[in-house]
Amino acid sequence: MSEELPKETSTARNIEIFEMTQTENQEIPIAKESDKVGLPPGTLIYVDDDGKDDETLREKGMVRAIQYNESGFTEIRIKNIEEIRSLDQTDKMTWINVSGLWDVNAVQTIGEIFQLNPLVLEDILNMEQRTKTEDYETYLLTILKQMWFDSEAKEIKDNQIGIITFEKTVLTFCEEETPLFGTIVERIKTGGRIRKYGADYLTYGLIDIIVDHYFYINDAFDEWLDDAEKRIIKKTEKADIEEINQMRHELSAFKKEVRPIITIAEKFEKSDSKLVRKQTRILFRDIYDHAVRISDSIETDHEILTGIYDLYTTGISNRLNETMRVLTLISTIFIPLTFIAGVYGMNFRNMPELYWEYGYFACLGLMVIIVIAMVLFFKNKKWI
Amino acid sequence: MSEELPKETSTARNIEIFEMTQTENQEIPIAKESDKVGLPPGTLIYVDDDGKDDETLREKGMVRAIQYNESGFTEIRIKNIEEIRSLDQTDKMTWINVSGLWDVNAVQTIGEIFQLNPLVLEDILNMEQRTKTEDYETYLLTILKQMWFDSEAKEIKDNQIGIITFEKTVLTFCEEETPLFGTIVERIKTGGRIRKYGADYLTYGLIDIIVDHYFYINDAFDEWLDDAEKRIIKKTEKADIEEINQMRHELSAFKKEVRPIITIAEKFEKSDSKLVRKQTRILFRDIYDHAVRISDSIETDHEILTGIYDLYTTGISNRLNETMRVLTLISTIFIPLTFIAGVYGMNFRNMPELYWEYGYFACLGLMVIIVIAMVLFFKNKKWI
Amino acid sequence: MSEELPKETSTARNIEIFEMTQTENQEIPIAKESDKVGLPPGTLIYVDDDGKDDETLREKGMVRAIQYNESGFTEIRIKNIEEIRSLDQTDKMTWINVSGLWDVNAVQTIGEIFQLNPLVLEDILNMEQRTKTEDYETYLLTILKQMWFDSEAKEIKDNQIGIITFEKTVLTFCEEETPLFGTIVERIKTGGRIRKYGADYLTYGLIDIIVDHYFYINDAFDEWLDDAEKRIIKKTEKADIEEINQMRHELSAFKKEVRPIITIAEKFEKSDSKLVRKQTRILFRDIYDHAVRISDSIETDHEILTGIYDLYTTGISNRLNETMRVLTLISTIFIPLTFIAGVYGMNFRNMPELYWEYGYFACLGLMVIIVIAMVLFFKNKKWI
Amino acid sequence: MSEELPKETSTARNIEIFEMTQTENQEIPIAKESDKVGLPPGTLIYVDDDGKDDETLREKGMVRAIQYNESGFTEIRIKNIEEIRSLDQTDKMTWINVSGLWDVNAVQTIGEIFQLNPLVLEDILNMEQRTKTEDYETYLLTILKQMWFDSEAKEIKDNQIGIITFEKTVLTFCEEETPLFGTIVERIKTGGRIRKYGADYLTYGLIDIIVDHYFYINDAFDEWLDDAEKRIIKKTEKADIEEINQMRHELSAFKKEVRPIITIAEKFEKSDSKLVRKQTRILFRDIYDHAVRISDSIETDHEILTGIYDLYTTGISNRLNETMRVLTLISTIFIPLTFIAGVYGMNFRNMPELYWEYGYFACLGLMVIIVIAMVLFFKNKKWI
Amino acid sequence: MSEELPKETSTARNIEIFEMTQTENQEIPIAKESDKVGLPPGTLIYVDDDGKDDETLREKGMVRAIQYNESGFTEIRIKNIEEIRSLDQTDKMTWINVSGLWDVNAVQTIGEIFQLNPLVLEDILNMEQRTKTEDYETYLLTILKQMWFDSEAKEIKDNQIGIITFEKTVLTFCEEETPLFGTIVERIKTGGRIRKYGADYLTYGLIDIIVDHYFYINDAFDEWLDDAEKRIIKKTEKADIEEINQMRHELSAFKKEVRPIITIAEKFEKSDSKLVRKQTRILFRDIYDHAVRISDSIETDHEILTGIYDLYTTGISNRLNETMRVLTLISTIFIPLTFIAGVYGMNFRNMPELYWEYGYFACLGLMVIIVIAMVLFFKNKKWI
Ligand SMILES: [Mg+2]
Ligand SMILES: [Mg+2]
Ligand SMILES: [Mg+2]
Ligand SMILES: [Mg+2]
Ligand SMILES: [Mg+2]
Ligand SMILES: [Mg+2]
Ligand SMILES: [Mg+2]
Ligand SMILES: [Mg+2]
Ligand SMILES: [Mg+2]
Ligand SMILES: [Mg+2]
Ligand SMILES: [Mg+2]
Ligand SMILES: [Mg+2]
Ligand SMILES: [Mg+2]
Ligand SMILES: [Mg+2]
Ligand SMILES: [Mg+2]
Ligand SMILES: [Mg+2]
Ligand SMILES: [Mg+2]
Ligand SMILES: [Mg+2]
Ligand SMILES: [Mg+2]
Ligand SMILES: [Mg+2]
Ligand SMILES: [Mg+2]
Ligand SMILES: [Mg+2]
Ligand SMILES: [Mg+2]
Ligand SMILES: [Mg+2]
Ligand SMILES: [Mg+2]
Ligand SMILES: [Mg+2]
Ligand SMILES: [Mg+2]
Ligand SMILES: [Mg+2]
Ligand SMILES: [Mg+2]
Ligand SMILES: [Mg+2]
Ligand SMILES: [Mg+2]
Repeated sequence: MSEELPKETSTARNIEIFEMTQTENQEIPIAKESDKVGLPPGTLIYVDDDGKDDETLREKGMVRAIQYNESGFTEIRIKNIEEIRSLDQTDKMTWINVSGLWDVNAVQTIGEIFQLNPLVLEDILNMEQRTKTEDYETYLLTILKQMWFDSEAKEIKDNQIGIITFEKTVLTFCEEETPLFGTIVERIKTGGRIRKYGADYLTYGLIDIIVDHYFYINDAFDEWLDDAEKRIIKKTEKADIEEINQMRHELSAFKKEVRPIITIAEKFEKSDSKLVRKQTRILFRDIYDHAVRISDSIETDHEILTGIYDLYTTGISNRLNETMRVLTLISTIFIPLTFIAGVYGMNFRNMPELYWEYGYFACLGLMVIIVIAMVLFFKNKKWI
Repeated sequence: MSEELPKETSTARNIEIFEMTQTENQEIPIAKESDKVGLPPGTLIYVDDDGKDDETLREKGMVRAIQYNESGFTEIRIKNIEEIRSLDQTDKMTWINVSGLWDVNAVQTIGEIFQLNPLVLEDILNMEQRTKTEDYETYLLTILKQMWFDSEAKEIKDNQIGIITFEKTVLTFCEEETPLFGTIVERIKTGGRIRKYGADYLTYGLIDIIVDHYFYINDAFDEWLDDAEKRIIKKTEKADIEEINQMRHELSAFKKEVRPIITIAEKFEKSDSKLVRKQTRILFRDIYDHAVRISDSIETDHEILTGIYDLYTTGISNRLNETMRVLTLISTIFIPLTFIAGVYGMNFRNMPELYWEYGYFACLGLMVIIVIAMVLFFKNKKWI
Repeated sequence: MSEELPKETSTARNIEIFEMTQTENQEIPIAKESDKVGLPPGTLIYVDDDGKDDETLREKGMVRAIQYNESGFTEIRIKNIEEIRSLDQTDKMTWINVSGLWDVNAVQTIGEIFQLNPLVLEDILNMEQRTKTEDYETYLLTILKQMWFDSEAKEIKDNQIGIITFEKTVLTFCEEETPLFGTIVERIKTGGRIRKYGADYLTYGLIDIIVDHYFYINDAFDEWLDDAEKRIIKKTEKADIEEINQMRHELSAFKKEVRPIITIAEKFEKSDSKLVRKQTRILFRDIYDHAVRISDSIETDHEILTGIYDLYTTGISNRLNETMRVLTLISTIFIPLTFIAGVYGMNFRNMPELYWEYGYFACLGLMVIIVIAMVLFFKNKKWI
Repeated sequence: MSEELPKETSTARNIEIFEMTQTENQEIPIAKESDKVGLPPGTLIYVDDDGKDDETLREKGMVRAIQYNESGFTEIRIKNIEEIRSLDQTDKMTWINVSGLWDVNAVQTIGEIFQLNPLVLEDILNMEQRTKTEDYETYLLTILKQMWFDSEAKEIKDNQIGIITFEKTVLTFCEEETPLFGTIVERIKTGGRIRKYGADYLTYGLIDIIVDHYFYINDAFDEWLDDAEKRIIKKTEKADIEEINQMRHELSAFKKEVRPIITIAEKFEKSDSKLVRKQTRILFRDIYDHAVRISDSIETDHEILTGIYDLYTTGISNRLNETMRVLTLISTIFIPLTFIAGVYGMNFRNMPELYWEYGYFACLGLMVIIVIAMVLFFKNKKWI
Repeated sequence: MSEELPKETSTARNIEIFEMTQTENQEIPIAKESDKVGLPPGTLIYVDDDGKDDETLREKGMVRAIQYNESGFTEIRIKNIEEIRSLDQTDKMTWINVSGLWDVNAVQTIGEIFQLNPLVLEDILNMEQRTKTEDYETYLLTILKQMWFDSEAKEIKDNQIGIITFEKTVLTFCEEETPLFGTIVERIKTGGRIRKYGADYLTYGLIDIIVDHYFYINDAFDEWLDDAEKRIIKKTEKADIEEINQMRHELSAFKKEVRPIITIAEKFEKSDSKLVRKQTRILFRDIYDHAVRISDSIETDHEILTGIYDLYTTGISNRLNETMRVLTLISTIFIPLTFIAGVYGMNFRNMPELYWEYGYFACLGLMVIIVIAMVLFFKNKKWI
């Protein structure tokens, strides 16, 4: 479906990382969710429970402005946040992407420029935010998580992304820079359909690409479950139940992010905001489909996991049965034999058998007969 | 209820398979769901996770146009997709059926001819699509799966079918050719009631026959469950829990397809689209009935499966109990006897019993008494 | 509440069984649900999965017309279906009851006389139909099942009944003749309140008596559960888990029929059809009550059943514990004794104890002391 | 909040028990639920599944009329039901309370006097009735159960109460006399707020006091669960699982009565009947609160019960583990020792050790070493 | 987001604790929930099931009035409740906070001053009240619980808070004084945004800070679960199942408080009361977010807890398996050896092996071979 629209000259001014409002040696304040308790509503603090360090955070800061319309495309790396005020926004779409949200002052300045509600900024700066969409009349706020499966740690990793949608402007705030948005930039640069439409279409494109990537996680779970099932069928080590617990935990975490995506898609599809055009609303049905299918797949995975757990526990029981069968077999065969040996080991003076010529051999013969009888009995019981 | 309407001459022009837009040696690109990640919305790629090969796919390509009204019936095999443009559509119903969707260009051309939304085409080309119906105002999109039970592999197999309903035109897109539609063609040919009605009635007929066939799967499950229950009651092998897991899995997969059929039937019954006439809407209640009954039956099967699982696990426990009873019985009887034998096997100088005339026989007698007492004790406990 | 209305002469013309449209030797076609797959909607076939034979079916055929108003009552056995056309329907209620639905042609003729939708006839002829009510504007269709508990087979049996309600006419179609309707006929004959009201009231009366009889099944389950619980507390045989499974299954089957009755009652109570008068709508609250109470009772029964299952499985575990306690007790007491006997059975030349005067008795004494110590130890542990 | 309204003279005419319409020796017909099957709707029969006897029932019969307004209060024991017709009902609230409902004729007469629907009377006479409220336009029917916990039998007992609410008249029908209503009578007598308001307020007061008493049952369950938990932690007897089952059963029975109370409170709060004034509707929120809190508490109790069940079953498993550990310990220590003793009990001619001076003591030493090694091994495994 | 509004002089008159309407020696009546049964609606009694004593309660009594507007702030400790009547309420926000609710007369007087419904006062005085919000047209009632985790007792503790919201007045009633409100007072004193807004905003602020503190409990659970999981993986003591039960119980208690917070937030957000301004309604979305996230987290914790329980029970099973493996190993190796020793301990006259030169050593050799064979067999079975 590649469209052959005329590509204008893209005059990207590549400037360095934007001027930090905090000096380099200053510590970056990272709060835990519970550190914010008691602060007035709308207090801006960078909240993250994942324990990032200052170095990593500082390196990631970057602001980029992209402007386009049907006839052109410009990309600007913003060095000083105040530059945003001077962007000419007539007759074009403007997309401002902020990656790395540790510079709270920068985020606050952007909030002032675009007159955002402090509660919106607070949500955007909270990396533990709930996936949701909210209508603020002049703009829409959407928060969701880019996610991927770390196959080493067997863990889902995420990168929270906040999207503010005006009529002709989109602001995106990423916990850290995401490669996914590069794909969208490329589509805009090469003049795809996206160039013709407004902020709602760009928002759709961004959400779509994030949700599309959930399919990789889906695939990773399928593989993991399949592999675990095979290993459990073969042998059981104590580690398995812990792995089952971990699978359960990661699946739940995934479900918790996917379910609100369904709600987001429905809200956009049925939106009565003038910011979401009718032709864009229909597109969200596609995201709805994706989310429902992934959600269905997670449900299936949960059922498979229950099956694996059953395999594991019945495996334990079966092994106990087997162990006890071995014990019972050996005991039942030898206990009577040992008894007979014990009898003829008694020291009674008057024990006629002991003096028979072939008493010993008769005794051994008796033992063999008992063994054969026992073996036949257990064969019949299907124990051997 | 066969109706004796006058059968007109059916002027079917049997032409060969339509001209492929791709040459024969070209590879057919089959994407997995996750391969589409990152592509612009509406990008047309054939998506299938089932691993079909090129040969099979290429053989299946076929486009057929059927036109009929109360007074006549024509069937045309389309060799070149462009022929569709020249079909005379006045005063008749037109049904175009595409089987084998690998020729993406062909599907795209049809999309252009009928001005379909690229997202609709994308869905039709995705064999992992969710079962659903959507209203696009000038047409309706319905996607569902023909399904059958492969009794060898003990697996549900499916064939995805997309239906586009205009006022007097129906387009169907099948993953592979389906024998079910032949039955409908026959009904049209022999001039049944279907000849009198429009595209909505044909759509009803197609969905009805697909859903009707779910009853076979229903029957297959009943048989499988019944058989598994009987086998488990008789003996338990390690394989059983895996079979229970497989049954669970297939049942879930079936439920996942049947549930959205209920939604589809409801949407058609309560449709406010002008494309669905009132008298057709009432017919969808019948499909609703079918779907609800199959769904109820699946629920019952799940309960039966839980019962089978309980049979299996209590079977394990009962067998352990039985094994331990055998061990305890044998041990408890012989351990005291062996002890007595041990006592009289001791080498103390001064052990009067050893020198009694009938000490040995008294000892044996004592042992017999102990055995009898034990046996009575266990009889009393209902262990033997 | 018996009313003393004047009883008019009831001029019942008792004619023989209606003339069969099929000759006596002809086979009656009985289809399974899945045999209908692929037939056009509205195709009339007698569907039943219960495996009845021709003889039984043929004997059951009977059509009866009852006509009444406040001043009179007439009962006619219809021999020839066409007689129905000539019934005078002015100023009176007409109830036509068809018992035994194998004569598809007869049903079809009735359908033609009363202009019923073929889908309605199809549903009436399907003995596996879902319990439901549907509004066809000029008439209402209600399908439900008369049920009873076969205490021999420990199974719920059913007899499907279809009711068509016009303004002054009621048609009932019974899988086989039901004694319940005799009660209603008697009430009409003896001139109860029912004589004053229309078709909606008769419909209410018919549904009411069917639902009333569900209380017997309720009682049967209470008895069965109670009995099973007592038996399981006393002893456990392998058959129990199978009985638990059977109880689960029958309870589920019962629930599946009772739940839609709640929906039927609600639909009638809130009906906006002109066929259901306001004073009749209020009566359906009573049926609603019945259905809810039976449904509640089934829920309770399910909980009781879970309790029985828990009794059963903890019974198994407790018995294993008991078995192992016996084994451990015997083993723990005798193993050290046997060891001591073994020691003094060794053949070392230099074993001073063997030569002591009372070595043997000292040894026996030691053994007794050990036994006493062990018994005290186990007493303390509450094992004996 | 005691109000000091002027108390008027209460002219209570204490007459004996009302004249029974049935003679003393006549049997009182008590039907079971299933005995009513097949009777016409509205047939009045006293239904009770609890097996009361005639004597108890007959003693309980009593009808009392209370009339009051802001300026006065009168209480009359009705001896003859027909007296009710002659009660002056202008300008006052009338409350007629019937306790003991076995005299069906009396109930029927009251029904005629107040023109009640026969279905209402039927419900009132059915002691197995569902807790509910229904709007009959000129009056409201509310049925609920006074309940208390019989701590001897560990069972919830109930007393069904039907309330009919007109604008200025309340009729109450109690399965047996309830002491709770005495409290309300006292409030009216002492001239509380209740004297100022109408029938809706009295209805509120009656329901409120009944629901208030559910808190006692709540407390009884808390105590029972607490006690059972403690007993199970200490020791397990076979009876426990049966007690757990009984607790489950009683809790379910309680829940089944409390849940519809929530619905009743909501229906009154949101009632559009002109019989329920706005200021009374607000009061039902308080009952709603009570019912929700009791319902929440029942849910908690169910969770606690699950915990108790888990305690019980893991207790069984833990005890088995302990038993097996004792067996394994004893066996593992003595089996090798017994083997050594066995070896030196062999009768081979040429066994050098037997002839060593200190062979016996070396052997004993070896055994001691083995025991020490074993003990250390098990200590390490934390078995001892 | 600190705002630099001009801070006016805060003229706080610090007066002592308000004059108690009950003398110091009088007993404070504390009722249990069930003690109120039977009292007329609206009867004011202090209800608390937690067993506080008089001393503690009496010390806590305190009433404080805070008045502020954009230009000033005053804080008054009320000694005599009647002072409240004389507070000048023109042009300012008034917040009256009552801490310690044992002085029922004081609460009643406040109720009279502000014309509160007796049912509202009754709810405020009931420390077992359900978390909820209700609209009384001229004011709103909100009841919720401040909560914290007592890490010693491993228990959630709570402090019930009732909030009455008029247009420019807020009344708060705290079970005991809460430090959280100090934070809000400080915000008002230092002239934050809160000074500009009305009673709805203050209500929001109070609810927000209470809900914010739930995050601490959330963290405490995370830590507890994590710690318990680690301990269970290492070793299982009998206490564990009881700890799991306690965790379940506390989690449920927490959930029960958090869930209605979601409802409260929704009710405020969608409120049609004129007391809640549009800009305040949006703020409640933030509280909604918090409550949903905490609720999600509780759900996750429940799943983790299920995982811990599975770890625990499979741990028991695995340990049993291990124990039985040790027993079986030792038994299976030594039982045959002991049998052989028994055979050669028999006293038959004619046993050739006994007289072989190296018979003893051959026998020992045979035993060694058997041991090696057994060890290899169990190695192969992965038992050792
Ligand atoms: Mg805050
Ligand atoms: Mg995180
Ligand atoms: Mg994160
Ligand atoms: Mg992260
Ligand atoms: Mg997509
Ligand atoms: Mg799509
Ligand atoms: Mg999956
Ligand atoms: Mg895409
Ligand atoms: Mg597939
Ligand atoms: Mg497929
Ligand atoms: Mg069908
Ligand atoms: Mg049908
Ligand atoms: Mg089935
Ligand atoms: Mg069909
Ligand atoms: Mg059947
Ligand atoms: Mg049947
Ligand atoms: Mg009835
Ligand atoms: Mg009733
Ligand atoms: Mg029952
Ligand atoms: Mg009845
Ligand atoms: Mg009862
Ligand atoms: Mg009762
Ligand atoms: Mg109350
Ligand atoms: Mg209250
Ligand atoms: Mg409780
Ligand atoms: Mg009260
Ligand atoms: Mg408390
Ligand atoms: Mg408290
Ligand atoms: Mg907050
Ligand atoms: Mg927020
Ligand atoms: Mg948590």
